Amino acid sequence: MIEVIQTISHMHQVADQLRNAGDRVGLVPTMGYLHEGHLSLITRALEDANQVVVSIFVNPTQFGPKEDLAAYPRDLDRDLDLIEKAGAKFAYVPEVEEVYPEGFATYVNVEGLTDNLCGISRPEHFKGVTTIVSKLFAAVKPHLAVFGQKDAQQVLVIQRMVRDLNFDVEVVVAPTVREADGVAKSSRNVYLTPEERQDAPALYRALQKGKALIEAGVRDPEEVVRTMRAMINATPYGQIDYVEAVDMDQLAPMSALSGQVLLAVAVYFGKARLIDNVWVEVPRKTPS
Amino acid sequence: MIEVIQTISHMHQVADQLRNAGDRVGLVPTMGYLHEGHLSLITRALEDANQVVVSIFVNPTQFGPKEDLAAYPRDLDRDLDLIEKAGAKFAYVPEVEEVYPEGFATYVNVEGLTDNLCGISRPEHFKGVTTIVSKLFAAVKPHLAVFGQKDAQQVLVIQRMVRDLNFDVEVVVAPTVREADGVAKSSRNVYLTPEERQDAPALYRALQKGKALIEAGVRDPEEVVRTMRAMINATPYGQIDYVEAVDMDQLAPMSALSGQVLLAVAVYFGKARLIDNVWVEVPRKTPS
Repeated sequence: MIEVIQTISHMHQVADQLRNAGDRVGLVPTMGYLHEGHLSLITRALEDANQVVVSIFVNPTQFGPKEDLAAYPRDLDRDLDLIEKAGAKFAYVPEVEEVYPEGFATYVNVEGLTDNLCGISRPEHFKGVTTIVSKLFAAVKPHLAVFGQKDAQQVLVIQRMVRDLNFDVEVVVAPTVREADGVAKSSRNVYLTPEERQDAPALYRALQKGKALIEAGVRDPEEVVRTMRAMINATPYGQIDYVEAVDMDQLAPMSALSGQVLLAVAVYFGKARLIDNVWVEVPRKTPS
Repeated sequence: MIEVIQTISHMHQVADQLRNAGDRVGLVPTMGYLHEGHLSLITRALEDANQVVVSIFVNPTQFGPKEDLAAYPRDLDRDLDLIEKAGAKFAYVPEVEEVYPEGFATYVNVEGLTDNLCGISRPEHFKGVTTIVSKLFAAVKPHLAVFGQKDAQQVLVIQRMVRDLNFDVEVVVAPTVREADGVAKSSRNVYLTPEERQDAPALYRALQKGKALIEAGVRDPEEVVRTMRAMINATPYGQIDYVEAVDMDQLAPMSALSGQVLLAVAVYFGKARLIDNVWVEVPRKTPS
């Protein structure tokens, strides 16, 4: 049976019990409405941890004022069922009133890394993410936490936060889970109309094309981005938020592609905003 | 023998060992150059914890650009000797290069509470304090941490941070330790010239007078502050930074004093800036 933990003090208690029993604790932070992507994070956590806590919390501070907080899909009973079947024994499901009590005033912020890509159209988003993830780390006291590669900027921001704030938590990155046609699994895919859903594979196709160009020797980020933009713009419904080729360390533009490169896209389909990315290792010298 | 821990990973290791052994761990964060005030914090920690870690770190991010970071007094050998005599077995003395590595970008900030009192003349100070204290909590994983009442605003900011970020750490407040003439012990007292030192007792005298006025029934914060200001202004060397009577919860001005009141002063003597405070419980109704 899955144990549902609803208060911070109870979570602290369970965290101490698990650690005192010598368990290795993995955390999988989610906003619920679980799909196969989340379940793969649980499976990944269980590879390195013998006890896994899945948190379910639709975090208001990472939504902008005009975003989909109220509409965000929820189905707790189904989520708990899926978590149990995936092999996790604990669900941490705190109430928003306890997580953000009256007079709440403390935020964790990673400066710089959060200014570009998704940070441009969602200026307060990552401050909300790093604040809630800090709170989850303090509540659950995990040895490791698993995040999906789909949210690439989030992964890099959290890795920086963990290093900077000296959290004794290993950040594990799990690969993006995709539909048969390449669309990255996301709770927000339910927002798509059938017509928009037909356009959605263009994101991953564009990313694959960008990767292929780099692997064929293209080192000009402009050329890669231009090709990717054209592919997404060719769809009837997709409206580009951004298409970028940046270095993985600083998320900053490069004059010539080298080292670890992040190709990342964000595209609006009506009210839905989908993101996707691939990571490309560029050899420092082209083989002769 | 005292064990000196110099790296974050070693601190994590020792923290886990202590917790796994069932110890209750107390943290006393300091910037070194210890005086009796610090030693009283160690003694207080040992009342509720069987193992105490004293951190020594002159934290650059809590100093303003024109403040006394470079001149801040240091004497590690003497500090370690004093810590050992006070009964703590661990000193955590990390290097600044590891605490703030290249690309450091993550800050913890308590909004609102940090805008007034010391926050006015030291606008980045508390952001530096909450960031380093978060880092110390993550590194040392203490059950409790002891802070001195002398830094009253710091205490209130840290209490808010601990609540907001869900740290499983008990914040213990220890009373201010004073010289025979009432001057609060502070590492910065060494900056005072003999003449300035003669004026320094005016801070506590003014605070005592303010408290006496309130206990005699005065409820007008202006009257209390005016009297305290006059006493400090009567000294030849003291230059007031602020004299305030505010509510302890929000550190905000009150139209009439009631509930928990903080009387707080900050006064420059040449380059030295001294702070002091008293807490006064004001009955909601004056006894008839």
